[in-house]
Amino acid sequence: MLRCLRRSYSSAASVELIASVRDPKFRIPGDATIFSGIQPTGIFHLGNYLGATRVWSDLTERISEEKLNSEPMFMVADLHSITVPQIASDLRTMRKQALASIIACGVDPAKARLFYQSTVPEHSELNWVISCSTPVGMLNRMTQWKSKANLSSGASLADDASLGGVKLGLLAYPTLMAADVLLYRSTHVPVGADQAQHLELTRELAIKTNKLLRTDYFPVPKTLLAPTNKILSLKNPLKKMSKSDPEPLSKIFITDSDKDIKTKINKAITDSIDGKITYNPIERPGIANLLTIISAIERRPVSQILNDVENFEKRELKALVVERLTTEIKGPRERFSELMKNDALLNRISKEGTEKAREVASKTIKDVYELMGLN
Amino acid sequence: MLRCLRRSYSSAASVELIASVRDPKFRIPGDATIFSGIQPTGIFHLGNYLGATRVWSDLTERISEEKLNSEPMFMVADLHSITVPQIASDLRTMRKQALASIIACGVDPAKARLFYQSTVPEHSELNWVISCSTPVGMLNRMTQWKSKANLSSGASLADDASLGGVKLGLLAYPTLMAADVLLYRSTHVPVGADQAQHLELTRELAIKTNKLLRTDYFPVPKTLLAPTNKILSLKNPLKKMSKSDPEPLSKIFITDSDKDIKTKINKAITDSIDGKITYNPIERPGIANLLTIISAIERRPVSQILNDVENFEKRELKALVVERLTTEIKGPRERFSELMKNDALLNRISKEGTEKAREVASKTIKDVYELMGLN
Repeated sequence: MLRCLRRSYSSAASVELIASVRDPKFRIPGDATIFSGIQPTGIFHLGNYLGATRVWSDLTERISEEKLNSEPMFMVADLHSITVPQIASDLRTMRKQALASIIACGVDPAKARLFYQSTVPEHSELNWVISCSTPVGMLNRMTQWKSKANLSSGASLADDASLGGVKLGLLAYPTLMAADVLLYRSTHVPVGADQAQHLELTRELAIKTNKLLRTDYFPVPKTLLAPTNKILSLKNPLKKMSKSDPEPLSKIFITDSDKDIKTKINKAITDSIDGKITYNPIERPGIANLLTIISAIERRPVSQILNDVENFEKRELKALVVERLTTEIKGPRERFSELMKNDALLNRISKEGTEKAREVASKTIKDVYELMGLN
Repeated sequence: MLRCLRRSYSSAASVELIASVRDPKFRIPGDATIFSGIQPTGIFHLGNYLGATRVWSDLTERISEEKLNSEPMFMVADLHSITVPQIASDLRTMRKQALASIIACGVDPAKARLFYQSTVPEHSELNWVISCSTPVGMLNRMTQWKSKANLSSGASLADDASLGGVKLGLLAYPTLMAADVLLYRSTHVPVGADQAQHLELTRELAIKTNKLLRTDYFPVPKTLLAPTNKILSLKNPLKKMSKSDPEPLSKIFITDSDKDIKTKINKAITDSIDGKITYNPIERPGIANLLTIISAIERRPVSQILNDVENFEKRELKALVVERLTTEIKGPRERFSELMKNDALLNRISKEGTEKAREVASKTIKDVYELMGLN
């Protein structure tokens, strides 16, 4: 039974690749509720920008243009970030930077609800309800907690080593994420590929929780897979661009100056293969990453980009990347700098976002508690 | 290291046997915060009454007489009850019956804060924070989830069978309980022996969470062990009196009529040992249980009761139990019946209790979030 369900979740119907949000062929249903979140890891890098927040911005604009009913909701997932140890003063700064980054990257706070997860207590409340229908075995199958706990992807709670060291919060991460999504009865959740497994669990938990409550209250949400490939480290294109990478030249931040961008791209690892530029993520991951960056910025498929650049020298390709990036990052960089000086504005935006989010969230908890007899 | 800590938790200092709350030798510190909770299992039976709510009532009166600063807090633990499947309409009734029972059993709502757990969202919020410092291995050592999941007490998450079937909420039960206690920065927690293991975990988690937050914000709470032995089934005195026992003659409810009480006690299992009445829980569990009931009602040690009754016939002993019980239960029975007809009063009491509880709870969450950088 479970296996059947899982198979159907993975079908095309539940995961949609949004090759281009701006493409008119991509339809957003009139009654869609779009929700996503991002952990506060500090100033956003190119991976956060192209893989998440610019997609959010594109979705927000589409919804606004099509005059759909619901405002999309995007949150700074600060309760998720405490599943690994944090230094309080750093987390405080990173929360603010995350909110500023979301807006700087183009999400218009007048058209979307932006808020910090921790300011909406209903996330924690629904988390408890959902946890009562989450079999521990389902969490044991997830892979992310294993990597965060420095365990192999084959590790299991059935190993004493895992059992001893893993914190409950880290194991329960996907349950909180399911609660986040279901709290707003979301129908579409744009995420990166690394969260697709958790979204699949969210769908299973939506069904399980509906069954527990003898209702169809929670829609089974669709995954909107980010239109861009993963942005990789500029110094080691076998792993993804990451904030925690100790190598400063490996990543580009939305606050980088034109000079920073030029230096980093010029020093980016490529390869020594001669001849035409080709897109081959296995043999030529560095070149492929540069093509991905241009493709993502221009919102055009890699194949089209390749037509334009296949006869380029590598240095010409890099020059194009620098040119596109400096143009693209200028707006976010300037807005971020302005926003970080304007606490009052950030506070107002998050306060309004929280109020609007809680309008929905408190209704959901009231409904759920009523369905459960907790009233 | 952990072993040392555990040893010290189990020391006399952290577990206090309140042989009699009314005994002036039992001191409640002036700055004590007393907190406890009980699951809504319906109308309370004698075990709930003598083991929990009458102790709460005695504590409340002591605190009131001594004019201590803090009002004790007692909650209907409805979020705990959803860790096993519930029928909504039943749970709704049982919540109300639990609140009415607490008051009927003598806890004066003017002197204590009474509320439903689910009406204070901060329980769920602190639960998430605490879960981020709870190693799964610690929960694996607990025994209650195993019995509730119909697993042996030696079962482990390291068995695939346990992993597959156990719900996260059931495993996380002790973490929510720790959150309940710590939310009010409680110093003294009256519980029955079956919750003593969870309270020990609460102490460990208080220390762990303090360490995580680099603070001594949370007092390490003391366990106040109920002054009475466990009340056992009248039909099978090898197990405890339980609401879920299918044998109606095994249990006495606070709503039982004098006739019910007489029938049930007269049909209670004793033994065929002749001669004097003796207290021997192993050889004579039925007689021991009857002595425990008298001792609990009279708030006197079993040894003193034995002096009075050692030359009794068994039928005389039973007659004494019937006499004591009918006198003792009269007040709770009448009050319960009145309260269940007065929804407005129950609602007012729980609403006031929630408001007072949230005054403390919201301050705690604000402080904790601030300590973590979630502000």
